Amino acid sequence: MSLDFKILQTHGTARRATMTLPHAAIETPVFMPVGTAGSVKAVPQHLLEELDTRIILGNTYHLYLRPGHDLIRRMGGLHRFMSWPRAILTDSGGFQVFSLNELRKVSEDGVEFRSHLDGSTHFFSPEHSMDVQIALGSDIAMAFDECTEYPADYARARRSLDLTLRWAARSKQHFERHKHERPWPEALEGRTPSLFGIVQGGMYKDLRRESAERLVELNFPGYAIGGLSVGEPRALTREVIAETLPLLPADKPRYVMGVGYPDEIAEYAAMGVDMMDCVLPTRAARHGLLFTSEGRLNIKNRQYAEDQGPPDPNCGCLVCRRYSRAYLRHLMAAQEPLSAVLNTLHNLAFYLDTMSRVRQKIESAAPDR
Amino acid sequence: MSLDFKILQTHGTARRATMTLPHAAIETPVFMPVGTAGSVKAVPQHLLEELDTRIILGNTYHLYLRPGHDLIRRMGGLHRFMSWPRAILTDSGGFQVFSLNELRKVSEDGVEFRSHLDGSTHFFSPEHSMDVQIALGSDIAMAFDECTEYPADYARARRSLDLTLRWAARSKQHFERHKHERPWPEALEGRTPSLFGIVQGGMYKDLRRESAERLVELNFPGYAIGGLSVGEPRALTREVIAETLPLLPADKPRYVMGVGYPDEIAEYAAMGVDMMDCVLPTRAARHGLLFTSEGRLNIKNRQYAEDQGPPDPNCGCLVCRRYSRAYLRHLMAAQEPLSAVLNTLHNLAFYLDTMSRVRQKIESAAPDR
Repeated sequence: MSLDFKILQTHGTARRATMTLPHAAIETPVFMPVGTAGSVKAVPQHLLEELDTRIILGNTYHLYLRPGHDLIRRMGGLHRFMSWPRAILTDSGGFQVFSLNELRKVSEDGVEFRSHLDGSTHFFSPEHSMDVQIALGSDIAMAFDECTEYPADYARARRSLDLTLRWAARSKQHFERHKHERPWPEALEGRTPSLFGIVQGGMYKDLRRESAERLVELNFPGYAIGGLSVGEPRALTREVIAETLPLLPADKPRYVMGVGYPDEIAEYAAMGVDMMDCVLPTRAARHGLLFTSEGRLNIKNRQYAEDQGPPDPNCGCLVCRRYSRAYLRHLMAAQEPLSAVLNTLHNLAFYLDTMSRVRQKIESAAPDR
Repeated sequence: MSLDFKILQTHGTARRATMTLPHAAIETPVFMPVGTAGSVKAVPQHLLEELDTRIILGNTYHLYLRPGHDLIRRMGGLHRFMSWPRAILTDSGGFQVFSLNELRKVSEDGVEFRSHLDGSTHFFSPEHSMDVQIALGSDIAMAFDECTEYPADYARARRSLDLTLRWAARSKQHFERHKHERPWPEALEGRTPSLFGIVQGGMYKDLRRESAERLVELNFPGYAIGGLSVGEPRALTREVIAETLPLLPADKPRYVMGVGYPDEIAEYAAMGVDMMDCVLPTRAARHGLLFTSEGRLNIKNRQYAEDQGPPDPNCGCLVCRRYSRAYLRHLMAAQEPLSAVLNTLHNLAFYLDTMSRVRQKIESAAPDR
């Protein structure tokens, strides 16, 4: 058994479930902090654990380029390399290849691209993406897809969706054949990683439907909705999610990639999304944007210079229990490295708490199944 | 009572003591991590506490410029502002005024200098330095001194030492008159801060002697040896410390400012130094230099790329218990903010452990007094 997904309660379209992965049991709906290059930026792993983070995301593109998936395999996989004993989901590398590379060349076989680090030329195919993700030892790998840009006309979105489906089939075939070759298998007692498929189709309802239906025929253990948060209006994001979710098997995990603001992740969870990830809480933190129960707070603002209150009076995280807005503003102004650490810790706590509240709400509203 | 210094054991020239300050009881010999601008760079306060850090150093110059001592006073003092409940020693600002300012103008009254942040003009006198340190609410303040540069000829060192002595007298007079005006006094139940005097005199034995003798006549509760670690050879540092220490009252704390490497701080403690501070463990950490029981380790080196061992096999700190050299090297190479956090945590643990071992050695070697 690679992935055990058990729905405990439902409430309207929302559902609370447990997902058992090789390295950890996750409670869903879950928000997954992004650890791009083997680190959730600025946060030591034991503090992530103290936040009750059960699963983080790793970026295949970044780790492939530096330090390299072969090195990570030799180090026993990403879990061991970064000393993170809980679950890891890796993306396929596709999104970064498309978003960080203007000189990419897409063919039926895959994508040629240049490293954003040194300009060197590389090639990702569905098979190669699987090899890299297996070398990293992820709990959940993602099929290699073409993330359709926004806006994209109908013909472009259709071509992209067709290519993504052919790549999904190739991803699955290669993954199933090689998934046992992950590093450090002895620690996992036969538990194997899982591969999720990705729905594309731009902002076109019929294409999303076609993408979902044909993807489901390939029978993945979980499904993601990709190609969102690429610049489209927020109402459209919501619409595509609402249209697509019912087309995905209700008994399997459903993951929306790359979203969102705190109110969005709560809303999407209520709609029935089980998993989400986003760089927003970590990236915004480094720019001084804090998410709180009272809204967004730009800690750089002069108005906080002598504000002795905590970042969020309703938050119990270690930052809000100990530090004032005045101090956090000073750290940012003085460009102290502690600024990123504390801001990120708070934002992650707020995101994880948001999902915890969503889960509690489902639990208290619904009878046991 | 402002400072209670109680020697528990002596062993040769070394002594183990407890020093009770308004905010904490310190065990000496002690190494004080430097928290320049209200933060020991990259380390959250609760992790400093977990390292059993009892006292940190704050820089008057930096805090005066940003966020400003008046703001910190309004926030309840530096302890409250940065949420650090244990002891704080502040320097006088003199060292930074001299080392960060090429355009300074020294007069009998004090020093005019330009801010390294925005070029604005400022003036520090002994009285003003005391006012700033009292506003910060330090446990131990330092007399305003002129840190004699190296090399300095005899005439220059003499003039500088004379000026420093006149400033020491003015510092003391102003400090004693105003020390009760510290912020948040109600929390301290009448405990007041202490002012230490600073011995100067360049590298000239007779001038060091004269400086020490005339300073002791002013009767400070503790004495520092300043003007070291300014570029002189290490043997000379040791020689000046050895010459000066016996001239300072044995029943009062003796502090050598701005030293040193791990073997140096152990050596100076064995010579009878009670307190030391240095930016080395924190600054070197940010450049990838780790101090270990096996010597210095430049974590950037290629040889550590696949080294699964801990930074220091004999260290029990949270970094050495959890992370490999390979991972720390990757964090540095990828310019991950976690790199500074983990490197600094290890280096501070190593420095604090070094002093802890020195204290244990004195304790086990000497009978109780």
